[in-house]
Amino acid sequence: MNLLFIDSDQKAKYQALLSVSSLPDLQITPNISEANIILADPPAIADKLEQATSLVWLQSTYAGCDALIEQNKRDYRLSNVRGIFGALISEYVLGQLLNMTRHFSVYKEQQQHKQWQPHAYRSLNGQRILILGTGSIGRQLAVVARQFGMKVSGVSRSGTQLPAFDHVFDTSSLGNALADTDIVVSTLPSTPSTISLLDADTLSHCRQVILFNVGRGNVLCEEGLKIALTKGQISHAFLDVFEQEPLADDHWCWQHPDVTVTPHIAAVSFPEQVAECFRQNYLSWHQEDKLLTEIDFSRGY
Amino acid sequence: MNLLFIDSDQKAKYQALLSVSSLPDLQITPNISEANIILADPPAIADKLEQATSLVWLQSTYAGCDALIEQNKRDYRLSNVRGIFGALISEYVLGQLLNMTRHFSVYKEQQQHKQWQPHAYRSLNGQRILILGTGSIGRQLAVVARQFGMKVSGVSRSGTQLPAFDHVFDTSSLGNALADTDIVVSTLPSTPSTISLLDADTLSHCRQVILFNVGRGNVLCEEGLKIALTKGQISHAFLDVFEQEPLADDHWCWQHPDVTVTPHIAAVSFPEQVAECFRQNYLSWHQEDKLLTEIDFSRGY
Repeated sequence: MNLLFIDSDQKAKYQALLSVSSLPDLQITPNISEANIILADPPAIADKLEQATSLVWLQSTYAGCDALIEQNKRDYRLSNVRGIFGALISEYVLGQLLNMTRHFSVYKEQQQHKQWQPHAYRSLNGQRILILGTGSIGRQLAVVARQFGMKVSGVSRSGTQLPAFDHVFDTSSLGNALADTDIVVSTLPSTPSTISLLDADTLSHCRQVILFNVGRGNVLCEEGLKIALTKGQISHAFLDVFEQEPLADDHWCWQHPDVTVTPHIAAVSFPEQVAECFRQNYLSWHQEDKLLTEIDFSRGY
Repeated sequence: MNLLFIDSDQKAKYQALLSVSSLPDLQITPNISEANIILADPPAIADKLEQATSLVWLQSTYAGCDALIEQNKRDYRLSNVRGIFGALISEYVLGQLLNMTRHFSVYKEQQQHKQWQPHAYRSLNGQRILILGTGSIGRQLAVVARQFGMKVSGVSRSGTQLPAFDHVFDTSSLGNALADTDIVVSTLPSTPSTISLLDADTLSHCRQVILFNVGRGNVLCEEGLKIALTKGQISHAFLDVFEQEPLADDHWCWQHPDVTVTPHIAAVSFPEQVAECFRQNYLSWHQEDKLLTEIDFSRGY
């Protein structure tokens, strides 16, 4: 019998969902030390990891598992949730882009003053978007961006070409890639090689670029962004993730006219989808000892 | 030699674009009565149509030609602009939808108060969208909506099935179609059979529907909409077109909390694209007497 411990904001929901899915040889336990499987929100479980003395496999309810990977304990297998966030990230990025390029806030303001005043705009068609990270999220965003007629490039560690992208650069060409785009979207996880990848130095290659950070906060150096905004290298930043969350009251981002702050909502875990991902991983692990979305601790993703 | 008269807000731009395209046997004239070809914005030329005594072919710079079709003069051939508005309409509809469903205005307000407060949302994935009109614009919107995982139906006069749609209803099934959707988008032109198609009666089939009108204003009966909003049949209306434009200062739509007013900007004619459409029509007409985007006066599209 496998014993599952659940630790999540949505614990009751997961219990209900898993009880109806009737997975073989699986029982929920309230006792973390006897559990060989854990289903948890990474920030919730991180501090309790040392108590999980029987742990074999931990299923994260998030895509980003940095809160776990940075712990000392690594004598277990870790899987994340994939495939469900790309659509939500695409909604966020395209929605914010269109909201800005099509002046919806301006028209909302005008409506309050009964003002009928059209404004010129540029279509997304033909605009260049550079997506940092070509995993599941980056690829889904690439497909949607292309549907709007955008020219889509990517950046990945390997620079392996992929059908969803017109071109994929490797990380060593990041500067050139940033110099040749209108929009940059970071979907990168937090790993030793991505922390502060976007700093004052790399951002200095940008010219009037619209920047999105929908991956992890510490991939973007916020002080570097401040400089790039002052110099006009970045014209606007849409930030959903930050070095420290929640964003501190006295943080400069709140009041900067060219920064849009959202509270880490670009992609959230819908329990139904996470439970389905757990179910598939469980069956595969139970039958073939294989996790479909396993994280490599050394790479960090 | 063909003589072309131009009447448009963008006249200077069209003159410049056409002078570089060097079309054979074509010369621009400032004299409307000697012109056998006219390139014009429909509202601008409508009043002067009787002066166009040599007119053979009129190329509209708009998709909607109702301002011309409703004139008595019909002894000429009429073509509109197609294929360039679908992308812009898709931007408008998806942008407004995402702006609303993803609470961007709420977050903008919160940012002003330094408030870090996530709100639950529903993805577009799985939501049902019904597109009235399955021409070039409706089809392009269908493809983009499907990319976001939406279930896409259409309504057309014939009810002919099309690959971009899960199902196409004919107009006689409009009530059933409206009863079974989350979102309705009218892309319909103004014709004798579409005027007031969406009135209090047809809208009464809707249940908490988000309505877009991006076609022609008089397809939607505004008094009928007011009733449907009061009854909760329509939960929100995004209106880019109106029975009278510009919208009068005392119109109820300006101040209704569940109506978003935009000043007919969902799709505008970019001169480069219109000039390209004119060029293709001109070459086809010149060589084969065939207009690629000809309007049938009796159908109205």
